[in-house]
Amino acid sequence: MPGAIFSDDDRHFMRVALSLSRRGLGNVWPNPAVGCVIVSAQGEIVGRGWTKPGGRPHAERVALDQAGKNAQGATAYVTLEPCSHFGKSPPCALGLIEAGVSRVVSALEDPDPRVSGRGHQMLKDAGIVVQTGLMASEAYAHNAGFLMRVSANRPLVTLKLAGSLDGRSSLANGASQWITGGRAREKGHFYRANHDAILVGATTVLADNPDLRCRIPGRQQNSPVRIILDRTACISPDCHLARSAGETPTWLLVASQYKARAEKNFAQTAVKVFSARCADGHFDLHDVLHVLAEQGLTRILVESGGALAAAFVRQDLVDRILHFQAPGIIGADGRGLIAELGLDNLGNMPRFNRRSVEAVGQDVLISYDKITD
Amino acid sequence: MPGAIFSDDDRHFMRVALSLSRRGLGNVWPNPAVGCVIVSAQGEIVGRGWTKPGGRPHAERVALDQAGKNAQGATAYVTLEPCSHFGKSPPCALGLIEAGVSRVVSALEDPDPRVSGRGHQMLKDAGIVVQTGLMASEAYAHNAGFLMRVSANRPLVTLKLAGSLDGRSSLANGASQWITGGRAREKGHFYRANHDAILVGATTVLADNPDLRCRIPGRQQNSPVRIILDRTACISPDCHLARSAGETPTWLLVASQYKARAEKNFAQTAVKVFSARCADGHFDLHDVLHVLAEQGLTRILVESGGALAAAFVRQDLVDRILHFQAPGIIGADGRGLIAELGLDNLGNMPRFNRRSVEAVGQDVLISYDKITD
Repeated sequence: MPGAIFSDDDRHFMRVALSLSRRGLGNVWPNPAVGCVIVSAQGEIVGRGWTKPGGRPHAERVALDQAGKNAQGATAYVTLEPCSHFGKSPPCALGLIEAGVSRVVSALEDPDPRVSGRGHQMLKDAGIVVQTGLMASEAYAHNAGFLMRVSANRPLVTLKLAGSLDGRSSLANGASQWITGGRAREKGHFYRANHDAILVGATTVLADNPDLRCRIPGRQQNSPVRIILDRTACISPDCHLARSAGETPTWLLVASQYKARAEKNFAQTAVKVFSARCADGHFDLHDVLHVLAEQGLTRILVESGGALAAAFVRQDLVDRILHFQAPGIIGADGRGLIAELGLDNLGNMPRFNRRSVEAVGQDVLISYDKITD
Repeated sequence: MPGAIFSDDDRHFMRVALSLSRRGLGNVWPNPAVGCVIVSAQGEIVGRGWTKPGGRPHAERVALDQAGKNAQGATAYVTLEPCSHFGKSPPCALGLIEAGVSRVVSALEDPDPRVSGRGHQMLKDAGIVVQTGLMASEAYAHNAGFLMRVSANRPLVTLKLAGSLDGRSSLANGASQWITGGRAREKGHFYRANHDAILVGATTVLADNPDLRCRIPGRQQNSPVRIILDRTACISPDCHLARSAGETPTWLLVASQYKARAEKNFAQTAVKVFSARCADGHFDLHDVLHVLAEQGLTRILVESGGALAAAFVRQDLVDRILHFQAPGIIGADGRGLIAELGLDNLGNMPRFNRRSVEAVGQDVLISYDKITD
């Protein structure tokens, strides 16, 4: 019932559900990260749940199990429409009906074609009051990765930038350890943990031989998939990413004509090889993202060098930017955060909406969102 | 009496005096921008003053005139030691004595050799209780330009930077109108108004033919001196800055061997020509600042291109940075905010202390201070 009137209590409980939902970000793909709060007729929270790692159990199931008999006559707040289809587990809509909840407040309809309104309908058919649309834009933002995968067949792309105040990510000699401070690097690892995958180009692997795992104590299990764009299959199976692919998934994307060579090179490793379309010696990044969405990824953190970052910007595929900025100056001989864009008119400058600014130790983190019409 | 114990009321009234003192910044040079509050024995503010444009009357004189007979037995809060010498007007210390104030709370001693403790002493000799050092660091920051001119024979240098989030100040073709938004440009004019002078290089004059006046309605009278560094006297007497030199002072700095040529070129204009030391085809910026300090300037806003900005950074002459950052990306073919510094070790990266971060319309303004030991 869009247009329903919600109370301050409704908003409060939905805010709690949204906050719980964030705990799943980065470890529930290909599922959405959902939050659920069950509130008794007396206004007490009797169950709280969020989608568990790997995507199961669902948030509603967890919250209902916690509520037990107290779910009878209660209101369930869910950040996404409860599922209606029998998959690996019975549908959550059925669970809510069987538990005897009398009202469901839902932020968003699930665009997944297997659900798409049927969850809400199933609840209504059982005589439950269903109200939708509460804090829909916040819920959309939380699950933008899942929603884009379902509706646009690509994951959400967040571009991470870290550099000096004059926009340089390293010295001319490549030195970049450390421009930003320890707090900023720690925060960078937190963002790794809440993304499904980290994406870099072969240049970064060749230059830095990075590890790209989440190194926050207690969160190492949340290390995302590591994705390398390596059109001509030039990186070595001896690099860190390939050697640790058994513990942390590592995917290599190459042009189709290099796929056989890559599979041969990496046969002794746990690296998975995929191919994506190329043109004029460059990846078609739309196709790269489609390939990743087909694998179920919903949230990608791009931690590449300036050339690949510029390609994402040029192809209008940057949904969010995380810009860590140190209080130092490197000068024009340093390497730029973003390579050439070839702009000849400031009217065409790619612009973003500032979402937040925060101090992170001595550095500043400015977050931006894509401007949507 | 450093080490005196101050009350919360003392701090409050000194804060008012500091706030008043800021009104003079940019229009009192070569004088300090002082604030003064006279508080009666009953705790009421009976006089408020700040140094008036051109440096006279002094803050104490203004506040005493406003207080009249109420100054009798009152406390005077001053942000800098009252002057003790007979110059264009009788000394403020004498004014305070004659008005019958019984206590003076002063933030800082005035390092001017004509004062330098003698103002405080004159008051004490007259039986007035004198307490110094209240909010000294805030008072120092407010008058850093004046204090540096007196103690280091150079003005305070603030570097203004404005560009895209990736540190570019214009496109490859030079287009820079507009990267930042209207609110940021307005704020830039406010900073022009509270500086004594704006400094640019000849490159900027040749490329943009700028006006550099303060265009805030009602503040046009605060347009600062416009300074052009033009080593080889290559700019034209037809440029905006030269043609409007009659209304707003314009100073040209050249190498000494070009001084005669510059004076001839600009003979028909109101431009004043100065010379400063050069070496290896570049200005010695320390000498440039000495020349400007000799003329009485205390606060310089550098609005130059990347090459001159880099020279100030390399010569460790940047005291403050005002960094306006737009939510857009220009890419590596744009011009950098700061030219080459030739760093080969991140340990040598010039670093600054972040003072504040604020949203200015769609842009962000980050202010930095030099790190002092």
